[in-house]
Amino acid sequence: MKFSTIGILVKPHSEDVRETLEKLLAYLHGKDCTVFLDESADGLVDSKIKLVSRGEIGEKCDLAITIGGDGTILNAARSLADKHVPLVGINIGRLGFLADVSPDDINVTLNNILSGDYIEEERFLLKAEIYRNNKVIFCAEALNDVVVHVRDVARMIEFETYINQHFVNHQRADGLIVSTPTGSTAYALSNGGPILHADLNAITLVPICPHTLSSRPIVVKDNSEIEVIIGETKQAIAQVACDGQTSFDVKSGDKIRITRKENTITLLHPKEHNNFEILRAKLHWSEHT
Amino acid sequence: MKFSTIGILVKPHSEDVRETLEKLLAYLHGKDCTVFLDESADGLVDSKIKLVSRGEIGEKCDLAITIGGDGTILNAARSLADKHVPLVGINIGRLGFLADVSPDDINVTLNNILSGDYIEEERFLLKAEIYRNNKVIFCAEALNDVVVHVRDVARMIEFETYINQHFVNHQRADGLIVSTPTGSTAYALSNGGPILHADLNAITLVPICPHTLSSRPIVVKDNSEIEVIIGETKQAIAQVACDGQTSFDVKSGDKIRITRKENTITLLHPKEHNNFEILRAKLHWSEHT
Amino acid sequence: MKFSTIGILVKPHSEDVRETLEKLLAYLHGKDCTVFLDESADGLVDSKIKLVSRGEIGEKCDLAITIGGDGTILNAARSLADKHVPLVGINIGRLGFLADVSPDDINVTLNNILSGDYIEEERFLLKAEIYRNNKVIFCAEALNDVVVHVRDVARMIEFETYINQHFVNHQRADGLIVSTPTGSTAYALSNGGPILHADLNAITLVPICPHTLSSRPIVVKDNSEIEVIIGETKQAIAQVACDGQTSFDVKSGDKIRITRKENTITLLHPKEHNNFEILRAKLHWSEHT
Amino acid sequence: MKFSTIGILVKPHSEDVRETLEKLLAYLHGKDCTVFLDESADGLVDSKIKLVSRGEIGEKCDLAITIGGDGTILNAARSLADKHVPLVGINIGRLGFLADVSPDDINVTLNNILSGDYIEEERFLLKAEIYRNNKVIFCAEALNDVVVHVRDVARMIEFETYINQHFVNHQRADGLIVSTPTGSTAYALSNGGPILHADLNAITLVPICPHTLSSRPIVVKDNSEIEVIIGETKQAIAQVACDGQTSFDVKSGDKIRITRKENTITLLHPKEHNNFEILRAKLHWSEHT
Repeated sequence: MKFSTIGILVKPHSEDVRETLEKLLAYLHGKDCTVFLDESADGLVDSKIKLVSRGEIGEKCDLAITIGGDGTILNAARSLADKHVPLVGINIGRLGFLADVSPDDINVTLNNILSGDYIEEERFLLKAEIYRNNKVIFCAEALNDVVVHVRDVARMIEFETYINQHFVNHQRADGLIVSTPTGSTAYALSNGGPILHADLNAITLVPICPHTLSSRPIVVKDNSEIEVIIGETKQAIAQVACDGQTSFDVKSGDKIRITRKENTITLLHPKEHNNFEILRAKLHWSEHT
Repeated sequence: MKFSTIGILVKPHSEDVRETLEKLLAYLHGKDCTVFLDESADGLVDSKIKLVSRGEIGEKCDLAITIGGDGTILNAARSLADKHVPLVGINIGRLGFLADVSPDDINVTLNNILSGDYIEEERFLLKAEIYRNNKVIFCAEALNDVVVHVRDVARMIEFETYINQHFVNHQRADGLIVSTPTGSTAYALSNGGPILHADLNAITLVPICPHTLSSRPIVVKDNSEIEVIIGETKQAIAQVACDGQTSFDVKSGDKIRITRKENTITLLHPKEHNNFEILRAKLHWSEHT
Repeated sequence: MKFSTIGILVKPHSEDVRETLEKLLAYLHGKDCTVFLDESADGLVDSKIKLVSRGEIGEKCDLAITIGGDGTILNAARSLADKHVPLVGINIGRLGFLADVSPDDINVTLNNILSGDYIEEERFLLKAEIYRNNKVIFCAEALNDVVVHVRDVARMIEFETYINQHFVNHQRADGLIVSTPTGSTAYALSNGGPILHADLNAITLVPICPHTLSSRPIVVKDNSEIEVIIGETKQAIAQVACDGQTSFDVKSGDKIRITRKENTITLLHPKEHNNFEILRAKLHWSEHT
Repeated sequence: MKFSTIGILVKPHSEDVRETLEKLLAYLHGKDCTVFLDESADGLVDSKIKLVSRGEIGEKCDLAITIGGDGTILNAARSLADKHVPLVGINIGRLGFLADVSPDDINVTLNNILSGDYIEEERFLLKAEIYRNNKVIFCAEALNDVVVHVRDVARMIEFETYINQHFVNHQRADGLIVSTPTGSTAYALSNGGPILHADLNAITLVPICPHTLSSRPIVVKDNSEIEVIIGETKQAIAQVACDGQTSFDVKSGDKIRITRKENTITLLHPKEHNNFEILRAKLHWSEHT
């Protein structure tokens, strides 16, 4: 077997994962795998199973399996990218763009994956650093997107964007999404962003409800340095969110510097995995009415 | 003179209005008008001038003049619609869609308007009532728009929309804008809404960053009853804002009922006023590059 | 019975309608209706049945039934609006926005409709007149839309738009769609136009691929006079199409004048008809993935 | 001097270029350059100057200068890419995205460029091959875009798209734009496509007025093989256009295969050239109203 030490991470506080988790544990024990269970599974399993930290999973496992949705993968990816642990996602609700293994297929699909029969995809992450008075006051990573967003309803923020030190524009808008190809089918898409093919080394900047109607999504090389400087906002304060999961308040004069993270995360998919097929299903491209 | 008792309302906490306010007061005193100054002018004028409440302006004045921007008119309109006091807007910053008198033109323009030489526009307002457990817990009015918006960055809310008791759809989105023709060139426009001609008796519903890409702006009759029911939101709570100025937190199960307010507000414009000309200027339709 | 003299119009040159036509004829004969068959059914029925002109159907029938899709209704509506003959549409392919009776439901639905149990909708049409050197050189009507479109691939036309004699803008674009509420879910929707509720007395102007990115759909009162004047086009000539079915070439200096037609067409629907339900089905609003 | 043999290509049939052409010729003669004039200048210069073919310019010149607009550069680029002749564009009308030298700056700018002081940009082209019955029946190149477009007004075509042999989707639409980064600010932008940074090695596929509202622009690697197969179109025939300048009719079953051309074209710009500055100017990003 290609993989024998398996970490499991689940959608936290979710009763829905219990059944699938039990099925997965039974399967892996049958395969004589060593299994480490993340603390997110607290309360879901027999109390005699010892839960470990995310860091321990990163150190000890050669494969991590998530149970949940795309959000669970996003969360796991941010923790495991530096440890070079590849990820497989079991989706317990709707089909995910990332979590594409159905609980019904656990046995067949994992048999294949454990024995090395899979498709491998490298996905890159973004690193967001927030500067205040030239000091980094916050730093986080994102597999989908870094979103700068106004906090108050129906107020706009003003900000300036720079790409590789070149001034791009000054905008009044609800915010800005800086997205990887992975995130291009998530929040960016709802804001009129383009779909970036998963293997494209590019980042897209998508304005959120821009006051200037000619403001449009821009796509740049993945190695670009993107800087967003919050302008005078008076009433409206802004927030920076990574994958919609980690957030931080920013104010006038703060600079958000966004770059590609060097280490990537590896997603493993069943052989029959096809990104366009998932797009067709999720965006209803194939239906005729 | 057609108008002789004039109320003045200004953009609050704004030093920029001082000079224009002095000019306007001098002009009106020269015309022997009786002038009432709203409390928003506190600190801007000689302390011996008595400031009055918005209600008193509504009762006593036959014309109200605002100094500020469109926001100042929105604010005044909500207070004065029930009193049938017409409004003129002096814009101290950029040209406004509503406040279209330049401080430089005060004398000429007001001469014309005071003597009855103007264009009159009726604009209708919306009434938003928030129901919780079948009781109205909040009520406000809007000249531009009623916006239901998620509070947390990059989270979505779920809501159902009904028009005249007919179910329209269930959406996951950042929110929904319900806009008058007046508001159609404001926040709704940044979200892909159509421009409704000022004299059209219609309301537009514009989704904000909808998850379902085929969700589109809908335009209905002004006498429609629009209901938005907040669905299960778990993490994300929502807020309802009227003209981006008055807001209220809502939660799962709350219903926002939006209808047209019966009383309209009357805007007075200089004879040469032209809505399309303002659109061309503000949306840069006429420029060639 | 409320209706007893029935005209039938079918999608021309279509073998698919044969079966439904036979079923409908059998049903109507069983009801002792007098039936007139439009020339569009040529070749589909027994040669001893006499086919009549559209005009004759308009004169003699008190109800017209179409077999085909929305296009068949569009075509029939343009012929019958002046004759005040109401329309029912049987759709032989996909569910239509207009043709909403399934062939399977002919007996039940028509029983109800013939006995006066139905929902009635008034839909207005547009009238397009093309002026060259101040003379009308072409005139046609449309239930969906009047489209001014460039003829050559990837060329733009230039045109000026006026609403009620007021200059709106000068545009370079692939064209302009002037649409009724009925047409707002057709071609206009693909170009970013809003959905106008069927009972709204309004017309929308939707630019097609405008060069100026801030050019947006505009919605005006149904009684507006809309004029489009073709500018200098050099290489590109333009075409005007009504409902995508009748078209005419236009050139520099030509004026297309579009107004609401006074007579409306009446659509009859089954009692359970619901425009929002059709929207949800056709735009996949209700699906969860 | 870095360049001494200069080819000149102009916007054909345009009286507007005459003055700039004379100025340029005078300047180059003063520099002792050898000058070759393309046949596009026929009628614009002294009849004793011999005009040469595009091929001869490609063979003999080490720099080509165009006089006209972006269209003149597009045309020149397609002819000269295989000859590795770099291009400079003088714009006689509006500022261009590509032709960014003003006639007023000819002396200063060309002094710099001829002496090797410039910014160099590599831009890639697309190659479009049309297959009918497995044979190539047409082949052309494009610096901006390859556009597949319906010929008839307000009709749709149906087509299937494949990327690297993977089925993407089946669409009904007015057409599809396949664009380079260079073309992303041209026709693709009017259709909702993203702005691709000039140095991004990517191609974008932008649907034109798609019937399926969730159809969105897709961005893929520049080395992708894109295939578009025309479906059943009945009434509507389609056309393929390269840079809006070369076109060819296609019909049901035809396949358009689009790939990146290996040879690039080199654009030379003044040192102060800045793509974002041009974007800001042309899209009115910097204006405040």
